[in-house]
Amino acid sequence: MRCEVVAVGTELLLGQIVDTNSSWIGEQLALVGIDSLRQTKVGDNMDRIVAVLTEAVERAEAVIVCGGLGPTQDDITRDAIARVMGVELDLDDAVAARIEAMFGGRGRRMPMNNLRQAEVPVGATAIADPQPGTAPGLICPFTRPGPDGEPVAKVIYAVPGVPYEMKEIMTRAILPDLSARAGVTAAIRSRTLRTWGESESGLAERLADRMDTIDRAAAAGRSGVTIAFLASGIEGLKVRLTAKAPTAEEAEALLAEEEAEVRAVLGPDLVFGIDDETMESAVLGLLGRAGLTLALAESLTGGLAASRVTDVPGASRSFRGAVVSYASEVKHDLLDVPDGPVVSAAAAEAMASGARRTLGADVGLAFTGVAGPDPQDGEAPGTVFVGLDLAGEVTSVRLQLPGDRLRVRQFSVISGLGLLRTRLAARLDGEADAGDLQARSMPAWGSTET
Amino acid sequence: MRCEVVAVGTELLLGQIVDTNSSWIGEQLALVGIDSLRQTKVGDNMDRIVAVLTEAVERAEAVIVCGGLGPTQDDITRDAIARVMGVELDLDDAVAARIEAMFGGRGRRMPMNNLRQAEVPVGATAIADPQPGTAPGLICPFTRPGPDGEPVAKVIYAVPGVPYEMKEIMTRAILPDLSARAGVTAAIRSRTLRTWGESESGLAERLADRMDTIDRAAAAGRSGVTIAFLASGIEGLKVRLTAKAPTAEEAEALLAEEEAEVRAVLGPDLVFGIDDETMESAVLGLLGRAGLTLALAESLTGGLAASRVTDVPGASRSFRGAVVSYASEVKHDLLDVPDGPVVSAAAAEAMASGARRTLGADVGLAFTGVAGPDPQDGEAPGTVFVGLDLAGEVTSVRLQLPGDRLRVRQFSVISGLGLLRTRLAARLDGEADAGDLQARSMPAWGSTET
Repeated sequence: MRCEVVAVGTELLLGQIVDTNSSWIGEQLALVGIDSLRQTKVGDNMDRIVAVLTEAVERAEAVIVCGGLGPTQDDITRDAIARVMGVELDLDDAVAARIEAMFGGRGRRMPMNNLRQAEVPVGATAIADPQPGTAPGLICPFTRPGPDGEPVAKVIYAVPGVPYEMKEIMTRAILPDLSARAGVTAAIRSRTLRTWGESESGLAERLADRMDTIDRAAAAGRSGVTIAFLASGIEGLKVRLTAKAPTAEEAEALLAEEEAEVRAVLGPDLVFGIDDETMESAVLGLLGRAGLTLALAESLTGGLAASRVTDVPGASRSFRGAVVSYASEVKHDLLDVPDGPVVSAAAAEAMASGARRTLGADVGLAFTGVAGPDPQDGEAPGTVFVGLDLAGEVTSVRLQLPGDRLRVRQFSVISGLGLLRTRLAARLDGEADAGDLQARSMPAWGSTET
Repeated sequence: MRCEVVAVGTELLLGQIVDTNSSWIGEQLALVGIDSLRQTKVGDNMDRIVAVLTEAVERAEAVIVCGGLGPTQDDITRDAIARVMGVELDLDDAVAARIEAMFGGRGRRMPMNNLRQAEVPVGATAIADPQPGTAPGLICPFTRPGPDGEPVAKVIYAVPGVPYEMKEIMTRAILPDLSARAGVTAAIRSRTLRTWGESESGLAERLADRMDTIDRAAAAGRSGVTIAFLASGIEGLKVRLTAKAPTAEEAEALLAEEEAEVRAVLGPDLVFGIDDETMESAVLGLLGRAGLTLALAESLTGGLAASRVTDVPGASRSFRGAVVSYASEVKHDLLDVPDGPVVSAAAAEAMASGARRTLGADVGLAFTGVAGPDPQDGEAPGTVFVGLDLAGEVTSVRLQLPGDRLRVRQFSVISGLGLLRTRLAARLDGEADAGDLQARSMPAWGSTET
């Protein structure tokens, strides 16, 4: 089955928004083995949307339209689909009731425009939304005469342009419906190993032999596995494994086998998570296992580390809190950092112990350094000290990080949490040459034990 | 003149790379007043590229093709353009000499593939590249029979897919060539007003009369202004104004006039910034003007507010720091929050005063509430209290926010900072029915003064 993707919105053509939705949808289609041969962006114009959709359903059996489902006069995707299908729009009472209930529940008068979101082409199904009041997705099946005059089944799916709403509806309703209609036969599965502590080219070098083996097997038709690298800032450096096989089970088995091979090469200190697992969730998992609580002290990172940690559901079980000591006096007054330069190993260690004591935690982790663009305390931008007080055992490392203000802050957070991760893992494993682990937990840009 | 944009690359369809090139090109076309009505992504497949280009030159006078100009067998854009033009490829000796010289200069043997980059459709011009050895851009003029049989001038431009090479060639050679062919007579300028405190449909209702006036003027050919809305999470709800006029000066004048009209309708409490100005930068600007310093206390937002504030360069002039009091005991111990439920107006106010006192600031702003997914203290997810201690004057508001954990946290931050912004503005203006301002500074989802 072929599926085209159409993104609707004048703001996309004008470059005011980058169309990331089509890319994400294209990736999901590839993962279920559906060909996506063309993706089109078109403005909020009825004739042009109808033309694009009409041409797309000529070429493909399925079309996913993204955007133009909101409550304003600009939002004409529903009307355009109805024209392509050759049907009228009808009010879906269930959707209308949900929208009215949402406004009623918040004690607000509903603007009449919002009822437009309850209109559905005759013959189409509205996809119930877990967030009542937002635009429902649509599944719009119809037929077109084929070359021999026989009716050919076509389907247009409509999803909102807001990325998280689009992803939710795609995952829950549209991909399963599309796979069922397609009678999907080849299964593609992928898995991402998240790493920290080695550069992209360093990872490629370590895995060079393994990739040669894969390439030879693929050339001989004996394997459908590929490996790709993706530098992803605070999300780590990703190693993406993709496997293609006749069945989902076989693809999963290939993937499991390849994951074991790659993990054996890279080792447990580099690989901190799988797929959506962040460094924060890895650290919280280890803290939970060890029965320890965490406090943070943040200077250059300004709350970014705490914000990432508390993004993880259930963080409250292990996370006590943080002191964002942006002004130097806050470091001295609240965290008992001694007088002297605040971009230093001594300050980082004092901040870690201060956070641990002030916030009543077992572990204190602290960040101080120069985010840039200007130097501070005679240190260049990118100079960062991470301090760690692990139940009274106090250490610190000095990092020299590349990039602008944003990158330096992001790399600081993942490096500091990475240090804590390997220390906690060593403690839990009872093994541990701690100094060695520490060196390996730091990124490839260079760190010095202080 | 109409110009379509075609991005070539299977990796774009698979979502391995997001196509930012088309967005950038669309923006540049808009700024010189050229309509870009459709943008298409297509894979590295000869028949499909030829089909997309053939259809595009039917609809538009100009087409810009991006990508597929490299030295590998996958790079077939040159061949596809030649097919659409109905001509052969010919080796451009000057380009070939440049490529050979580059390899010679680096003492390397040139792979024969690289000479492919010197092939140019007959009748086309290679755009000399300042970086010899990289793919040259192409200007490919030709004619097509029009509806009356007379030849119509068409042009296809080819640019490399590497963004910085593409931008250099576009700016230096293609946009001037295109403007000359188009006999460009219109300039387009745009500006974004950032708002907070009203929903998208609410903004549309407030501006309905203004938009009617604009539509009538446009229909009568008397105005080239458009208004669009864009919900952007923690960045606010954006109102984008776009103006089209014969000259850049006239477009700017139209824009200034429209901005004044829209601001008059929405009022200063809703509009917090222009273009890239965030709520954080607005608040820091007002704090600087008022000579006040800020401290934060964050519970459900977990450091997100502090992180956003410290993203603004120069934040250290007004920002003292934050206490992320994730555990209830931290609220009681460090911020002197009295015993009782921590999701409450009393706790929010105590947190604000506690942060102000503990961190030695003039202003304390506090966030406590339920991010979800589970209820807390008998309150449903989305229930949030913002506390404010503005130099000893203590208040709070209760919010009921929609969305998942992430959205609730984001909306909390912009709502809380928005409250502080209107209070500071009122203080600076000397005016101020504070209660009224407070009500207006809260988002449309419903807030209650506590």
